[in-house]
Amino acid sequence: MFKKLLVTTALLSLLVPTMAFAADDKTPAELANAIDSVWVMLAAILVIFMQAGFALLEAGSTRMKNAGHVAGKTILTFGICAIAFWAIGFGFAFGDGNSFIGSGGFFLDGSQEQATASISLFAESPIPISILFLFQLAFCGVSLAIAWGGFAERGKLPVYFIFGILFTVLIYPIVAHWVWGGGWLGQLGMQDFAGSTVVHLQGATAALVATILLKPRIGKYNKDKTPNLIPGHNQVLSVLGVIILWIGWFGFNAGSTLSATGEGFFGYVALTTNLAAAAGAVAALVVSWMYFGKADIPSMLNGVLAALVAITAACAFVTPRDAIIIGALAGIITFFTAQWFEKAGIDDPVYAFSVHGIAGIWGTLSTGIFATPELAEKTGVGKAGLLYGGGLEQLGVQALGVFGAFVFVLVLSFIILSLIKAMIGLRVTEEEEIIGLDLSEHGTYGYPEQMKKAAQSSGTSSGGAQTV
Amino acid sequence: MFKKLLVTTALLSLLVPTMAFAADDKTPAELANAIDSVWVMLAAILVIFMQAGFALLEAGSTRMKNAGHVAGKTILTFGICAIAFWAIGFGFAFGDGNSFIGSGGFFLDGSQEQATASISLFAESPIPISILFLFQLAFCGVSLAIAWGGFAERGKLPVYFIFGILFTVLIYPIVAHWVWGGGWLGQLGMQDFAGSTVVHLQGATAALVATILLKPRIGKYNKDKTPNLIPGHNQVLSVLGVIILWIGWFGFNAGSTLSATGEGFFGYVALTTNLAAAAGAVAALVVSWMYFGKADIPSMLNGVLAALVAITAACAFVTPRDAIIIGALAGIITFFTAQWFEKAGIDDPVYAFSVHGIAGIWGTLSTGIFATPELAEKTGVGKAGLLYGGGLEQLGVQALGVFGAFVFVLVLSFIILSLIKAMIGLRVTEEEEIIGLDLSEHGTYGYPEQMKKAAQSSGTSSGGAQTV
Amino acid sequence: MFKKLLVTTALLSLLVPTMAFAADDKTPAELANAIDSVWVMLAAILVIFMQAGFALLEAGSTRMKNAGHVAGKTILTFGICAIAFWAIGFGFAFGDGNSFIGSGGFFLDGSQEQATASISLFAESPIPISILFLFQLAFCGVSLAIAWGGFAERGKLPVYFIFGILFTVLIYPIVAHWVWGGGWLGQLGMQDFAGSTVVHLQGATAALVATILLKPRIGKYNKDKTPNLIPGHNQVLSVLGVIILWIGWFGFNAGSTLSATGEGFFGYVALTTNLAAAAGAVAALVVSWMYFGKADIPSMLNGVLAALVAITAACAFVTPRDAIIIGALAGIITFFTAQWFEKAGIDDPVYAFSVHGIAGIWGTLSTGIFATPELAEKTGVGKAGLLYGGGLEQLGVQALGVFGAFVFVLVLSFIILSLIKAMIGLRVTEEEEIIGLDLSEHGTYGYPEQMKKAAQSSGTSSGGAQTV
Repeated sequence: MFKKLLVTTALLSLLVPTMAFAADDKTPAELANAIDSVWVMLAAILVIFMQAGFALLEAGSTRMKNAGHVAGKTILTFGICAIAFWAIGFGFAFGDGNSFIGSGGFFLDGSQEQATASISLFAESPIPISILFLFQLAFCGVSLAIAWGGFAERGKLPVYFIFGILFTVLIYPIVAHWVWGGGWLGQLGMQDFAGSTVVHLQGATAALVATILLKPRIGKYNKDKTPNLIPGHNQVLSVLGVIILWIGWFGFNAGSTLSATGEGFFGYVALTTNLAAAAGAVAALVVSWMYFGKADIPSMLNGVLAALVAITAACAFVTPRDAIIIGALAGIITFFTAQWFEKAGIDDPVYAFSVHGIAGIWGTLSTGIFATPELAEKTGVGKAGLLYGGGLEQLGVQALGVFGAFVFVLVLSFIILSLIKAMIGLRVTEEEEIIGLDLSEHGTYGYPEQMKKAAQSSGTSSGGAQTV
Repeated sequence: MFKKLLVTTALLSLLVPTMAFAADDKTPAELANAIDSVWVMLAAILVIFMQAGFALLEAGSTRMKNAGHVAGKTILTFGICAIAFWAIGFGFAFGDGNSFIGSGGFFLDGSQEQATASISLFAESPIPISILFLFQLAFCGVSLAIAWGGFAERGKLPVYFIFGILFTVLIYPIVAHWVWGGGWLGQLGMQDFAGSTVVHLQGATAALVATILLKPRIGKYNKDKTPNLIPGHNQVLSVLGVIILWIGWFGFNAGSTLSATGEGFFGYVALTTNLAAAAGAVAALVVSWMYFGKADIPSMLNGVLAALVAITAACAFVTPRDAIIIGALAGIITFFTAQWFEKAGIDDPVYAFSVHGIAGIWGTLSTGIFATPELAEKTGVGKAGLLYGGGLEQLGVQALGVFGAFVFVLVLSFIILSLIKAMIGLRVTEEEEIIGLDLSEHGTYGYPEQMKKAAQSSGTSSGGAQTV
Repeated sequence: MFKKLLVTTALLSLLVPTMAFAADDKTPAELANAIDSVWVMLAAILVIFMQAGFALLEAGSTRMKNAGHVAGKTILTFGICAIAFWAIGFGFAFGDGNSFIGSGGFFLDGSQEQATASISLFAESPIPISILFLFQLAFCGVSLAIAWGGFAERGKLPVYFIFGILFTVLIYPIVAHWVWGGGWLGQLGMQDFAGSTVVHLQGATAALVATILLKPRIGKYNKDKTPNLIPGHNQVLSVLGVIILWIGWFGFNAGSTLSATGEGFFGYVALTTNLAAAAGAVAALVVSWMYFGKADIPSMLNGVLAALVAITAACAFVTPRDAIIIGALAGIITFFTAQWFEKAGIDDPVYAFSVHGIAGIWGTLSTGIFATPELAEKTGVGKAGLLYGGGLEQLGVQALGVFGAFVFVLVLSFIILSLIKAMIGLRVTEEEEIIGLDLSEHGTYGYPEQMKKAAQSSGTSSGGAQTV
């Protein structure tokens, strides 16, 4: 426990109980900073908790034989990301540098000295650098979790190490720098409040490259190229995951105000975020009902996420009514693109590119359509959108940002993953894929009692490794 | 990210590092408002997270063939509720109006202008209207989630749309207005701090009407009217749900102080809440052990929730010791009423009316028994209870509140549900109920790999809808 | 809702909208207290939520036939702990007394009067006593949850009542008093910021005694004393549990600053905590991969927890780089000790002593190695560690603290558990253990649909108790 501070404050309050402004009192600025720090800390915790959401959603949306792997790799890769971002990625993203990349603040020591010397952007912030780091790390971790969707049910474990590190230090930080770290897109006034492009489109683009390079899962497509259904094994886990993501998004979007003292603007952002998510849920369920004749739950879950992804850029720039429109359209667009990609032969097991990529693009563009002049003014970023007198200017900047980020991540991911493929391969063997990644990569089933029979009949045993 | 504010503050701190009270400094009132806003925002997030608690508890307490439906409909109906409450319900509940209903603040735009013009109650609050809206929406969402308990395992999906909207815009807001929105029960001094009656009894009464109109599940009763056991499929999910609800209740009750600056009163409310929950858990488990000869876990979970429901009205008015008494008695009363309803032929699948209705009534009345004069004074609501020198006056007001809310919701729910029943029916067909709502309403199992055999043997296939 | 305050503030703001410092304004000290209170309240909620983490981790790491019991007993025992700690334990730990035990503040009423009269330590704190109580209760609850690991899959239900109460009132509070309540270890300058020793080693030592007295589970060891694998049934639940514990640890460690106004130091503590956890995950997975030839997920989960346990003492005293070292070594040490205990014939079903005990010892000692002079100065506790010019002095104090706590808990737990064993027995019968604790202790399976077959074939029926 934090003894010294406790005693000092306590003694002080005993000595000067009636003085309103004792010498040791915090100044209004210090108090405001503390309030903002608590809010951003809470936001960081909520966004880190989103890892649980992704673990559950991805595990629930895939098969029992891969469940332990899918859930477990989330923790592993967040661990890798946390260290790599601390050592390198954060410095490339937010350190002082040029308009392409930062170059300071590596191996963060949490001191104001380091921040002042090499991370001017945050040295000026009232919030401690440690908390800003955790908040930004949480965002990078989300982007990486999205990317893994493209590897699901067939990626080799070593690839998670290698690509996890490279994404964290080479891909994510550069686009983050462009938009939020003082780079060229930020200078152009691109509006991406909490990262429809920076976080979601980036992760989704890497997922798209991965899923194309890895090729479809065994059994996904018939010889005539028609797709088969490979349903996820547990919708209850998926639903829990989506609710965790939903509440995590309050940290994601409303936390990106980096302030709770700005006339309650963080509450406004939470309001638009919640309305969009709600609209996405309802719109996607209804569309799936009309299209399939059955109200499909996985489609609804994708609709919630697509809406949240889309409102991520727009949340601080649009009215509540327009948030509903953006969210509903995100749910609908994602539903149809998911169908389309599936039919086009791209097996994206958890629909990462549709949910985070297409909706990320839509969200970034929609900000250029629906941004009001008042909110652009309030946030100090960019201009009004197409429907609010801004003409095509802001929409053009948004489109440029989407294009730049997409092409950069597409090319770099392709190069990195192709190199990995050439050197060690991306995909497990056919036999390993059939018995499942729990056995092939980890030596035990995630659900050993439920899977025992399958293991017996396929002649595989988990006795090789001594489980601890 | 929120650039402008960041830079402004940053520049300011560079220019005037030694000035304690710069021109741009927040005033003490503004700082207090920001602290309260962060606290209520956290509370709102916790209460919205309770949707995960209800999804897991209800799914865990029902059968595998309905699990995807039960969990998934939670997200769907919270989405419906969020939009309907934003458009209409919030205005009926808290907008300016008369002592029966409010009539302002529809289609909330988050502006102070709208609040000042038509929502005086909250316009005067230091907390931004967006955050107050989210907090109140979360409460309405809980009430609706409780109501669904009565529909479990046999309700038709379209009913969730229709009743969800009508409950959100016509039922919940009116009773909320009566007690919290400036209506007649509030004027009489009814003590219902966080909603034993407003939230829990309302939802439970709708659940009771639903479960009576829907009739018992197939197989619940034998020809001699004795009940059969239909155990829930997953107690681990139920336990997780209850823990999420328990921590959500810190937002529910302690958040209802709407303040963290009032001498730590929000901590006091959290203390009574936690003690009641603990007492409910232990009391219900012991009673079930004595009654059944086995320490029944679902009974204990119901005991926790019943205690939390009961302390919801009383948390700000009673001592810690009395909170334990209220919680323990809630756990015991709920245990026996659950038995009684089951034997009386009312099949309430997740015991919604016992847990939220009976305990809600007990909690509201207990406040009129145990309220201390100091706490009634401190909160500024009502008077001391029966055991603390207040005589029967406060208890009478509490009883009137319970009676008024119960009759209103009973009658209105009955009318609405009877109309729905007459027009489209409330219940799935016998065949659909037997194969389960996952297949009948959504076209795929929630647990496809585990249910495959059952599906094969019953000749049903999930191939109809292409899962996405 | 909290009417009076609302209206008072509202009226005030109407009357004096332009006055910066009205008579009713909060002072800077009051505002700082409110900020700290919100932060510690959030921390308390996060640490209470860790009960869900333990319930899931322990349930996921054991077998299906015990799952309802394992999860359900978490709520039961937290309930018992909450009441016993409120009545007695808190007073022994933090009430005024001597350097061995406290003796005031029993049956906490939440008033400043009681705090001033008998809990000087917290009476001087700016944070309300109710919130401090909840925070400390949450810690005791974690320690108790750890202890249960040693009883897993074979402990009798009544033992959970008896030992739960005695641990809460006699064991935990005394060591807590020694280190944090003004006792002899605190006076010596022992550095245990958030409880590697107080919380984790204590719980783990009780678990060790229990698991030795209870003897190994049926089937764990062969006649030649070689161990068999008894894998946990659900790694997805375990992963979810570990992520909940990870985020809970932000409350655990960063909350132990008891302040958000101290120049962002709570953020620094969160930073070291997160880096250690990440390092523990990666290190343990890699070690298991090298040792087993397979990247073992349960080993990785243990590594995360071991690292978090270790950084719990050190988080406020060490640099980010050293936090990574401490965490990585914790993950590795715990991996090998877990192997060693298993081979030595100690069947610790969820590795409680390795994860919380060995890592707790390592964490406490590591603080005496890595503590920097600046951070020892900042926190006002103890001195620099071995590697930072402090010589062996601090390390000696740390070792003494570990030794004192370990011996005390070992002896007292042994006496208590031996008495219970002699009087009513600790372990269920062989038959009960084989059919599982869900049936034997609670009368129904936690997973009734999945277990039905097993029950039928073993001739056991769950029809005895009417589930409610």
